[in-house]
Amino acid sequence: MDSQQTVDQILKDHVPEELLKKVNKVIYGAEIEKLEIPHYDDPNKCEVAGWKIGGAHQEQLRKPRLVRVGLIQNSIVVPTDQPIDAQREAIYKKIAAYIDHAAKCKVNIVCLQEAWTMPFAFCTREKYPWLELAEPADETGWSTEKLCALAKQHKMVIISPILERDPIGDKIWNTAVVIGSEGQILGKHRKNHIPRVGDFNESTYYMEGDTGHPVFNTEFGKIAVNICYGRHHPLNWLMFGLNGAEIVFNPSATVGQLSEPLWGIEARNAAIANSYYTCAINRVGTERFPNEFTSGDGKPAHHDFGHFYGSSYVAAPDGSRTRGLNRHMDGLLVAELDLNLCRQTKDLWGFTMTQRLKMYAEGLTRASQEDFKQQIV
Amino acid sequence: MDSQQTVDQILKDHVPEELLKKVNKVIYGAEIEKLEIPHYDDPNKCEVAGWKIGGAHQEQLRKPRLVRVGLIQNSIVVPTDQPIDAQREAIYKKIAAYIDHAAKCKVNIVCLQEAWTMPFAFCTREKYPWLELAEPADETGWSTEKLCALAKQHKMVIISPILERDPIGDKIWNTAVVIGSEGQILGKHRKNHIPRVGDFNESTYYMEGDTGHPVFNTEFGKIAVNICYGRHHPLNWLMFGLNGAEIVFNPSATVGQLSEPLWGIEARNAAIANSYYTCAINRVGTERFPNEFTSGDGKPAHHDFGHFYGSSYVAAPDGSRTRGLNRHMDGLLVAELDLNLCRQTKDLWGFTMTQRLKMYAEGLTRASQEDFKQQIV
Repeated sequence: MDSQQTVDQILKDHVPEELLKKVNKVIYGAEIEKLEIPHYDDPNKCEVAGWKIGGAHQEQLRKPRLVRVGLIQNSIVVPTDQPIDAQREAIYKKIAAYIDHAAKCKVNIVCLQEAWTMPFAFCTREKYPWLELAEPADETGWSTEKLCALAKQHKMVIISPILERDPIGDKIWNTAVVIGSEGQILGKHRKNHIPRVGDFNESTYYMEGDTGHPVFNTEFGKIAVNICYGRHHPLNWLMFGLNGAEIVFNPSATVGQLSEPLWGIEARNAAIANSYYTCAINRVGTERFPNEFTSGDGKPAHHDFGHFYGSSYVAAPDGSRTRGLNRHMDGLLVAELDLNLCRQTKDLWGFTMTQRLKMYAEGLTRASQEDFKQQIV
Repeated sequence: MDSQQTVDQILKDHVPEELLKKVNKVIYGAEIEKLEIPHYDDPNKCEVAGWKIGGAHQEQLRKPRLVRVGLIQNSIVVPTDQPIDAQREAIYKKIAAYIDHAAKCKVNIVCLQEAWTMPFAFCTREKYPWLELAEPADETGWSTEKLCALAKQHKMVIISPILERDPIGDKIWNTAVVIGSEGQILGKHRKNHIPRVGDFNESTYYMEGDTGHPVFNTEFGKIAVNICYGRHHPLNWLMFGLNGAEIVFNPSATVGQLSEPLWGIEARNAAIANSYYTCAINRVGTERFPNEFTSGDGKPAHHDFGHFYGSSYVAAPDGSRTRGLNRHMDGLLVAELDLNLCRQTKDLWGFTMTQRLKMYAEGLTRASQEDFKQQIV
């Protein structure tokens, strides 16, 4: 799908209103209200969408636990053959403006896209200049220092997915730094599952993460980060749930030819299966690299990775979801969530109660042993 | 959505053809060809849809492994206040005709809906007359005897989900009997996860299954059965995959108010995550019971469970899926699959290779212990 139009726009243009409601109920679940938020100065530069996710009922003993999340998707700014400090500086400048607008929208937790400081250069398999952009995941990191200041200024939690360089041993990781609303670093999570598909040559650059499945207990709720390819792994989503997550962010970078029909399914299924909110974020635009590269598909060498299709969205425990952001434009999606819906959905559907964890712990233990015998009749 | 029209029909009626292709690609994945199959004698009685799922490439060392599956969704026939032998006999008569037509469509494996011999009477919490319909899951069972004969006649594998009575101890189970193409019983699987939601009072009638996650190695491929509510549990799907399943059937009974927005997500996500085919089957129609019952939602007593919305479909490892059968009518969905796509998808996407099973076996073992401490930062 290379049209500039989203599926939503096409449906809105052609399907009569009453029927569209029925279609949307099946496609998107319960209707989600718009949230009134300030316009962005230049709407041609960044789409801003606000959603107020419903579904939670008013409890007698607990107050609503409203929180606003902000999802930022963006293209790169400066061509990839320019000096890398100019490239990351230009991205930062526009991201900072979007975060500033998120603050105006009263966002409590903002999450950026995967490896936001750079083009998604892993398709090239070139170590330089790209590995120069890897930085420590602490206050000494180029981007973390800046975002800690923004987090403090806006009293906002910021999830910042970067390319990490561990100074001890110069190990490279794909990492999300979680920054608290006082500008302090709460911790980090390293991507658990690394792809080997298409031009996602990431296994050339870094290994599977060693940070487990941390849940960060912020003042705005318990949050976790499932980075990109980890969304294909239900076990990864599950462990964040078992550790108590109420919102799991999925900062990603993925292209249309490969994954677009999967995009609306996986993070949404995770929200349903684990009774938490999920926030799927994809970068946007086509990134062209100076040197040609091949894709292991017998086709001629080329300079770009394909189109990152944006389409970031939020899914709720009850299976409803927001519309996606644009496929071709930067965007900020603001969603107001009531975290009480997580426990309410567990009470209603009972997925955690009926999950028979011990049986599966034993099953997976057997299945992960070398002498595993499949249960075949 | 109480319209008689499916989402597909609405879109087809209103969205211009070129744009519809784009919409369908995002909603349904890669385009799926129609499969030429014989018409049913009375198309007003039973919708028959044929699909030829593509995506597999021709290998050099393996031939295509084509198999045709048949999914049957149906309403009950005789009112629920009539004698129960008349009720089940009437259902059987029409099911047998559909199976006969499936044979004309060259179907190799047919799967019926959950508890197909009866109305889905668990909403009433009345033990009688409904438990009289429970039967042993062997050749002495009323339905199994009949279906073994049909399986032999049509040289077809039949999956028959019934209410099982285990004569030893008179235990009741929700069970799928798997019958081989020579009319022999290959084995059975008992539903692993029992709902406690809405009018699904099944936990009043039977307990969680004790048959593990068997995969049946038939001449038409390795198949398994994930019964109804088990589709909400990614671990259940996963274990069938670890045991080698290539097709997992999900015979179900679920109503529109509760689950319709989840229906297209869960079985399809399972196909993606586990690189196998999934076949989701839901019963169809509204079943009215003689005595009124309440639903634990503060609303007045009533006589029906709500609308079973059919919409049965097949999803492929690459994330593509067929259109759903009708929401209001009996249906037979025939799909031709190439089982080679399972391994090809594993090779392409690498989800099994990158799954880090040992880490999760350890994680689930910890999480299922009483002194489990969540990984909270």
